[in-house]
Amino acid sequence: MEGEPTLRLRVFDLNCWAIRYLSKRRQERVRLIGDTLRREGFDLALLQEVWSEQDYSDLRVKLAGCYPFSHYFRSGVIGSGLCVFSRFPILDTLLYQYSLNGYPYMLQHGDWFCGKSVAGIGVGITAPLLSLSLQLHAEYCREKDAYLPHRLVQAWELAQFIRHTSKAADVVLLGGDLNMHPEDVGIRLLRGWTGLRDAFAEATHFEGCKNGCTLVPDNCFTNSSELLPFPLGIRIDYILYKAISSFTVKCEELKTTMGPAPGTDIPFSDHEAVMATLHIQRQGQDVGATLGTDDPALADVVTEARTEVSVGLRAAQRQRYSSGRMAVLALLLLLLQAVAALGTLAGLGAEQPFPKLSFCLLAFLALGILILATGLHLFHTMEVKMLHGTEDQMWMALQALQKRP
Amino acid sequence: MEGEPTLRLRVFDLNCWAIRYLSKRRQERVRLIGDTLRREGFDLALLQEVWSEQDYSDLRVKLAGCYPFSHYFRSGVIGSGLCVFSRFPILDTLLYQYSLNGYPYMLQHGDWFCGKSVAGIGVGITAPLLSLSLQLHAEYCREKDAYLPHRLVQAWELAQFIRHTSKAADVVLLGGDLNMHPEDVGIRLLRGWTGLRDAFAEATHFEGCKNGCTLVPDNCFTNSSELLPFPLGIRIDYILYKAISSFTVKCEELKTTMGPAPGTDIPFSDHEAVMATLHIQRQGQDVGATLGTDDPALADVVTEARTEVSVGLRAAQRQRYSSGRMAVLALLLLLLQAVAALGTLAGLGAEQPFPKLSFCLLAFLALGILILATGLHLFHTMEVKMLHGTEDQMWMALQALQKRP
Repeated sequence: MEGEPTLRLRVFDLNCWAIRYLSKRRQERVRLIGDTLRREGFDLALLQEVWSEQDYSDLRVKLAGCYPFSHYFRSGVIGSGLCVFSRFPILDTLLYQYSLNGYPYMLQHGDWFCGKSVAGIGVGITAPLLSLSLQLHAEYCREKDAYLPHRLVQAWELAQFIRHTSKAADVVLLGGDLNMHPEDVGIRLLRGWTGLRDAFAEATHFEGCKNGCTLVPDNCFTNSSELLPFPLGIRIDYILYKAISSFTVKCEELKTTMGPAPGTDIPFSDHEAVMATLHIQRQGQDVGATLGTDDPALADVVTEARTEVSVGLRAAQRQRYSSGRMAVLALLLLLLQAVAALGTLAGLGAEQPFPKLSFCLLAFLALGILILATGLHLFHTMEVKMLHGTEDQMWMALQALQKRP
Repeated sequence: MEGEPTLRLRVFDLNCWAIRYLSKRRQERVRLIGDTLRREGFDLALLQEVWSEQDYSDLRVKLAGCYPFSHYFRSGVIGSGLCVFSRFPILDTLLYQYSLNGYPYMLQHGDWFCGKSVAGIGVGITAPLLSLSLQLHAEYCREKDAYLPHRLVQAWELAQFIRHTSKAADVVLLGGDLNMHPEDVGIRLLRGWTGLRDAFAEATHFEGCKNGCTLVPDNCFTNSSELLPFPLGIRIDYILYKAISSFTVKCEELKTTMGPAPGTDIPFSDHEAVMATLHIQRQGQDVGATLGTDDPALADVVTEARTEVSVGLRAAQRQRYSSGRMAVLALLLLLLQAVAALGTLAGLGAEQPFPKLSFCLLAFLALGILILATGLHLFHTMEVKMLHGTEDQMWMALQALQKRP
């Protein structure tokens, strides 16, 4: 950046809600997104919920001219849904899959099948830039949020991932659907532990939905009953950034879309898009790697998050116990039946005490329950391990924070 | 490191083979390992296969005096088996679980249940040190190694993990059971892609089993029939290291244990321990971050690894297809039975064509196959996604390598 002291970087971020067979007017919207990206010519486009590889391929073909570099991240059963289009070369890619992501048996929520991840790309502009696109576990019920511990584990893992990988870059840029309100503990943890700054709060100029909301009742695809407690909408899609070494980053402008795309009657998605214009500038001296752990309130945030993780840990331990007990009971019933069957075969009983059909049905039922309960027990054992491990890591972080002057 | 120009770091690495109820003379051996670690006073001890948290707790109590800092990493159903004891403060911990790790239905191999991971700790000595302890998927049959693609995905993920996290440290140190022979493609990939150097090859002075082997037929716990093609044994446990910034690292001495521990009749484990003495020195100027991608043969290594991953991908695709077909067949059978049952109920058939019991048994069998095949299909879908993703990443790496002058 010798000859060009300031780089102006235009970033587009959108949760595209492109689920095959389920999302309304998907193909039309993906076409619309592609047209807009081509017309506007951003530097980086971070897209989430592009679940179909075909949609990605179509976008890639359409955008080959203005975004010659792109990557689609594969993981989980369905995929990560994450893809990135860039005007600058993508030097490296890295995918980190969160260790917890909901429950496989919650089919109606489906997060488990998505392999939700944070996708990192190293972009070689003039300063090495680490750009992250991601999505965290959805919140299905704010009052009784059973997934809060999982989302906090994801936020913590994301923060740790950023802390450990960001040193290789000069600037870190994160765009995605964090599924958390701005004041939620997970967001405060992520921002505090990494030092990332919120483009909405920092922008010199803002234009878009009130309070920067990205899930608004006016959008014809949102479920307005879910937004009843929030008549203005909620802000859950973010662009966050920080400079690592001798650079400074400033957000000149932040915009969100507001309903229907220009010239059409439909919006891009059920989320609004977030668009930021960042100014990246090289400083004379190294400003030091701000890992963001200098906030005195950070210890309180980590403590709060750790408490929530502990609550989740206890719930997981209870579920592990119940499923284990269920498996043992099913096994006992099977053994009892086996003894009875052997007894009958050996001619011990005068005659068979149960009708054959019921006997068989009961055995199959017990076997089914045994398999299911064992599977659940294994799953909750893993959950307990991961929640426990995160609790430990947070404790260690707290120790380190408290030791500081 | 101003007043102390050279740091002498003594590292101990051992696959402890401490599986509850399965490993022979486990408690005795864990006691022995603890005694030796206390007596020898290493700076860092990287242990693998400590599957029982009780064993870790016992070791921690015993070693509290000379290794005041320690961490146990939890993951998977059984755990990661990884723990670290350190004489220096552990500033940070990070766990990365490999995205592929064998098959849940290969119960006799059990790797899937272990949640194999790479465990990173940031140690604050005089130079920030990133120390990694890890274990990769075991090789059960060298001639027909079905797990090679999984192990290569792990080696690649490990290499990427090191590339992306190591910039935060001045020195990277890796110790673990890589389950690969020194000339295997996975080791060449790991070393080439990260620039890590092999302590055995670099050591000024070596003492121990011939060729640095760590799985030797003389060890009374090894399965000597498995080592028949290798009468001297094999080397699968490694200590690797590299300096990142203005430091140099030299391996002064490397040792392996040779059978029974001093004063006893049993060895520590079925693996031999590896012990290295490293010299870490600050250089006048920054020697540059050697990411190790300057080897002209590296492109060949990446190509070779990618070919193996492609072979694995095709096998996974076949398995995904077979399990999917099986699920569809089971579903069809169930539907057919439902139609037949409904027909009988509606009085269409003159009388019931099958005996009730066989009919029920068949239905349950079909249901069981449907559930199992669907589970398998989901699992292999994830496997395909991860193998495909790794293949993509390797392709991108190759492009970057080929573009260099």
